[in-house]
Amino acid sequence: MSNMKVRRLVQLFARLPGVGEKTAQRYVLHLLTGDEETPRELARELATLRDELRPCERCGNVAEVRADGPTVCEICADSRRDPTILCVVARVHDLMAIERTMAMKGRYFVLGRLLSPLEGIGPEDLPIPRLLRLVADDGVTEIIVATPPSVDGEATALLLKRELASLGVSMTRIASGVPHGGDLEYADPITMGRALAGRRGL
Amino acid sequence: MSNMKVRRLVQLFARLPGVGEKTAQRYVLHLLTGDEETPRELARELATLRDELRPCERCGNVAEVRADGPTVCEICADSRRDPTILCVVARVHDLMAIERTMAMKGRYFVLGRLLSPLEGIGPEDLPIPRLLRLVADDGVTEIIVATPPSVDGEATALLLKRELASLGVSMTRIASGVPHGGDLEYADPITMGRALAGRRGL
Repeated sequence: MSNMKVRRLVQLFARLPGVGEKTAQRYVLHLLTGDEETPRELARELATLRDELRPCERCGNVAEVRADGPTVCEICADSRRDPTILCVVARVHDLMAIERTMAMKGRYFVLGRLLSPLEGIGPEDLPIPRLLRLVADDGVTEIIVATPPSVDGEATALLLKRELASLGVSMTRIASGVPHGGDLEYADPITMGRALAGRRGL
Repeated sequence: MSNMKVRRLVQLFARLPGVGEKTAQRYVLHLLTGDEETPRELARELATLRDELRPCERCGNVAEVRADGPTVCEICADSRRDPTILCVVARVHDLMAIERTMAMKGRYFVLGRLLSPLEGIGPEDLPIPRLLRLVADDGVTEIIVATPPSVDGEATALLLKRELASLGVSMTRIASGVPHGGDLEYADPITMGRALAGRRGL
């Protein structure tokens, strides 16, 4: 497969998460030898993907672009959602993971990135002013910080605590500990330590 | 992700080999939230993929379409290849697996499918007449049958032997046995039996 077009397509598919060059080659070969309609239809759908779906203007979730109004996602548009509870996440992926639990009755705010001194991402690179405005506009009373339990995620949580302290809103952090079905024997010391520190009354 | 366009794209990506709905969702989410150029470029390349690359008119391998001549693949166009040795494979994927060994000096013929009574694929569905013509035209003296060592692959090999017998060409079948690095303890009885039956002098 030394053809230039094939090489370019392999490179593009290899940008997908978890796809290496070998997997990308398999995909391209499949599209080359399978039915002719699949690559054409994929092309049609991908061509307009980023024009038809944009970040929600309120929360940053994926939202359909409408000709007759602002781009607002299904969750922000849902009046049954409690606007006083706001869950702050790093990425849309995390929002979806939380939505799958069906345990979140409030709305979300997607930061889009985490504080990361190593990558040169400072507090000014996070959409804090937009978050402050949303909290004020919606009368939010509880903020659940659901950034990941990593170094950058924890640093971002602390930054949010500091920046939002003046609002007098209740702020909570999602629990970190041994996952469901996890074996204590194989839990790393940090996770085990957090599980201990976060213990609750039985 | 209940958007119709997103659902359609997830379905399309899930047609790729080894991609389930969850993986397809991850791909779509990545294309939705990553850089804007990747989905557009993928769209452009995929739109013309099947117009620019077609099966080689001689062997069925992937070949670039040219305005100034027939669609012939790189291998068939390569005069350093020995035209008297022909390797018959089921799919382009198999051709590429053999090419990676760099042990094949001859050319190929891609059947495109295997004999499969269960799926209603009979001898008349295989491109035997085209294969016979190629063997005669190129003065082939050895045919290596490299269909997979499966029920359908073996049935196809036997059919080829019968159909090509009258040409008086030497026909061989690739070896089947315990794979390199494989453990005899875990080899299935059919593989182990083939390894024994195919034993060679030390």
